[in-house]
Amino acid sequence: MASKESKRSTAKGKKEVKKETGLGLTHKKDENFGEWYSEVVVNAEMIEYYDISGCYILRPWAMSIWEIMQKFFDAEIKKMNIKNCYFPLFVTPAALQKEKDHVEGFAPEVAWVTKSGDSDLEVPIAIRPTSETVMYPFFSKWIRGHRDLPLKLNQWCNVVRWEFSNPTPFIRSREFLWQEGHTAFATKEEADAEVLDILELYRRIYEEYLAIPITKGKKSEHEKFAGGLYTTTVEAFIPQSGRGIQGATSHCLGQNFAKMSEIYFENEKGERAMVWQNSWAYTTRTIGVMVMVHGDDKGLVLPPKVASLQVIVIPVPYKDADTQGIIDACLATVEKLTKSGIRVEADIRDNYSPGWKYSNWEMKGVPLRIEIGPKDLANKQVRVVRRDNGAKIDIPMDSVVEQVEDMLRAIQQNLFDIAKQKRDACVQVAKTWDEFVKALNEKKLILAPWCDEEEVEKDVKARTKGDMGAAKTLCCPFDQPELPEGTLCFASGKPAKVWSYWGRSY
Amino acid sequence: MASKESKRSTAKGKKEVKKETGLGLTHKKDENFGEWYSEVVVNAEMIEYYDISGCYILRPWAMSIWEIMQKFFDAEIKKMNIKNCYFPLFVTPAALQKEKDHVEGFAPEVAWVTKSGDSDLEVPIAIRPTSETVMYPFFSKWIRGHRDLPLKLNQWCNVVRWEFSNPTPFIRSREFLWQEGHTAFATKEEADAEVLDILELYRRIYEEYLAIPITKGKKSEHEKFAGGLYTTTVEAFIPQSGRGIQGATSHCLGQNFAKMSEIYFENEKGERAMVWQNSWAYTTRTIGVMVMVHGDDKGLVLPPKVASLQVIVIPVPYKDADTQGIIDACLATVEKLTKSGIRVEADIRDNYSPGWKYSNWEMKGVPLRIEIGPKDLANKQVRVVRRDNGAKIDIPMDSVVEQVEDMLRAIQQNLFDIAKQKRDACVQVAKTWDEFVKALNEKKLILAPWCDEEEVEKDVKARTKGDMGAAKTLCCPFDQPELPEGTLCFASGKPAKVWSYWGRSY
Repeated sequence: MASKESKRSTAKGKKEVKKETGLGLTHKKDENFGEWYSEVVVNAEMIEYYDISGCYILRPWAMSIWEIMQKFFDAEIKKMNIKNCYFPLFVTPAALQKEKDHVEGFAPEVAWVTKSGDSDLEVPIAIRPTSETVMYPFFSKWIRGHRDLPLKLNQWCNVVRWEFSNPTPFIRSREFLWQEGHTAFATKEEADAEVLDILELYRRIYEEYLAIPITKGKKSEHEKFAGGLYTTTVEAFIPQSGRGIQGATSHCLGQNFAKMSEIYFENEKGERAMVWQNSWAYTTRTIGVMVMVHGDDKGLVLPPKVASLQVIVIPVPYKDADTQGIIDACLATVEKLTKSGIRVEADIRDNYSPGWKYSNWEMKGVPLRIEIGPKDLANKQVRVVRRDNGAKIDIPMDSVVEQVEDMLRAIQQNLFDIAKQKRDACVQVAKTWDEFVKALNEKKLILAPWCDEEEVEKDVKARTKGDMGAAKTLCCPFDQPELPEGTLCFASGKPAKVWSYWGRSY
Repeated sequence: MASKESKRSTAKGKKEVKKETGLGLTHKKDENFGEWYSEVVVNAEMIEYYDISGCYILRPWAMSIWEIMQKFFDAEIKKMNIKNCYFPLFVTPAALQKEKDHVEGFAPEVAWVTKSGDSDLEVPIAIRPTSETVMYPFFSKWIRGHRDLPLKLNQWCNVVRWEFSNPTPFIRSREFLWQEGHTAFATKEEADAEVLDILELYRRIYEEYLAIPITKGKKSEHEKFAGGLYTTTVEAFIPQSGRGIQGATSHCLGQNFAKMSEIYFENEKGERAMVWQNSWAYTTRTIGVMVMVHGDDKGLVLPPKVASLQVIVIPVPYKDADTQGIIDACLATVEKLTKSGIRVEADIRDNYSPGWKYSNWEMKGVPLRIEIGPKDLANKQVRVVRRDNGAKIDIPMDSVVEQVEDMLRAIQQNLFDIAKQKRDACVQVAKTWDEFVKALNEKKLILAPWCDEEEVEKDVKARTKGDMGAAKTLCCPFDQPELPEGTLCFASGKPAKVWSYWGRSY
């Protein structure tokens, strides 16, 4: 899509003046990233801050993105014959504490209900931080023989983790929305295969819907899910903060939870066997990553595939011009695009100037703006402006559907390409401790040869502790560069076993 | 749809023997309704009891019904330009206590979080029993001028009401799923109109989807939503227990909450005005009402429109018969029906007899069963059996799609018609106290002329107190019979103002 610049009538000059009085952000993305983020999620009307710290209101502009991703993912897992269910919000202390490593991982963040009305409960009741310990006693009940397997459940729900570290909208909140899948298989092979099938769906959410490049990989022993066997992840990276961010995780739980909850079955040979389990989840965090990756100093930038509004049509009336004719042309354009399945609205409010509207819809990140003024009407054309790169192009009204469709596809691809370029530019190979520390200070996404020992990871954490937070492993990418024999671990000097991504993280 | 009975080959005789060893219910609907209900929701795999009283697991067989209703309702409210959002689960005591009548209505049932990990919270935090007090402070922030109105939000979420009265799956549980709509308008007229538009959607859920007849009406002052102006309702009735059940409610809140949360706006004349508000909700209770109304001594009976599985195809192999041919015919039938949008599966498990499968799918309430045996194969026909009335019919394989579609429609209609006949047969007009008490003892749905005074309703409650629970108003039906002048209230002897439905209720 060529960025065809063309001169604009006097109407434009006037608009730009109004724009100055508009709705800008007070912080710039490259100068003060944290403040910029907090401002953009509020000004774009995605988030409202709430009077309980770490809890946020998801406004319709954010919720619609969640719903679009949900529709995709829910349809995909239904094809895999995974069924939705709903387990209670509440957990008894006995159930919660069944798996020791697991409860240690979550205990400090668990919220406890101790009263109802004015009465104390006999036993305090926990609010689910995740549902392994809620569900698995029932897996034990429902699974008897090999014909009851696989058992594949999912639920869409809220969970609560009462964290005290710096809360951030979408990224780190005390309550969040997610899906959690919980499955049980007769064999490890089936469980292993599903872990990757689900991880591929998470990749598609990030790359195909949110236009965010991710790295698929495995978490270190130290970073894996508490109580599980191994954890796979899709990892994203935020260049401005120089931090990795765990996008979504698909865990193989092995047989550890099965042992605790006694999930046995009679296999085909009539023997008693234990199931293999997975759990996997993605959360509303996805939306925060999208804001961080694509947003700019004008506000939010929405990838067309997740934008509840893909095109905004704005009349640009001018004195003595045929205002009604312009509005009619806007409405006709909306009708034409709607019929082709494009999500489009006209902003025909008469109490805001076109310039104010431009800023408003730029703040909200709508991928394409269509302007129709007197000259456009006369020339039977519309002016289309891209949110991602500001490119303007005049297109004949006759071909508006095809060209808008093309442009939405181009924007989706461009957002991904730009994000990938920026992410790739941050990758830095570090083979020695000095190189590692230098790259960390430069906010790089560090790829380093590693001995893969938990003690060494703990040591790196201890040695890099500071105001910005310690460095840790992000993941061992599935796609491993060559590791020549004799390569040493950057941190321990022992023989390296894998390449691993390291960095600070959210 | 004729209930064409036809003789069955010896294969059938064999099946019926096996059936005896099957999966029956130990309680009968007409003999021990409460026990029957608890058994059917568990045996049909809708519900699993949980280790916290009043909390239940919604298994996929129940969840799929919820999802079908959700898809319908969500699409309808989106047409009305109502937007989905998500507000936090938690409420501060200050917000909760803002509206006095409202908090009095909910306070005894509120669950309180007082600890996180091992630490006490500074201030206890409530779990939402409903979200008026969570949302409306933000309505005040977001609404400035008349152009911000109407504001129309909805959320799909869980709420908690820690009730101590008899918990019942779906019907009365401490946590349940619902949608809650919250809207604000410039004028009472707009609010009034929306109340009824939403109530009509609730009617459609019950009558068109769940095949349950309801009565639209208004709640008495005593029974209306705490803090609201008036409450409209769709009321159902359960003949076996002789109890009314509130199906879903659409409230006009008037300006009471607006006053407490200071939701003002500048109207078109530039004056300061206060908004008019509504809230409305339906819950997973809908599913329980469906079980109660349609279920029978063989188990659940699902209306086709909400059945995640509308047709089950079962091979009926017989020794020396072409088993593979039969299974292929089953699979071909599934393929044909699936292509026409019918939700269908084949049960080709080889470790269960056909008879066992019949009982199993009858227990689960699947509307139609298709049997294919050697004789069917030879005659190029299938045997179709209706779950609602047991009618059997042989239909040519060639016309299976059209006939199955017809039968599903017929079942949906028949379930509604039968339910309506049974409900109507319970209606009893009572003009005097004696008639009222007699009808109440006979578990009738009582229609009585009433003075519409709150004190009289309280008095009726007091006078009818007992093991079964007191009688109360269910609703004043919108469709009022003629009330001749001089008609007296059945309870107070004062002049009657309205006809009202009375009875015991859930």
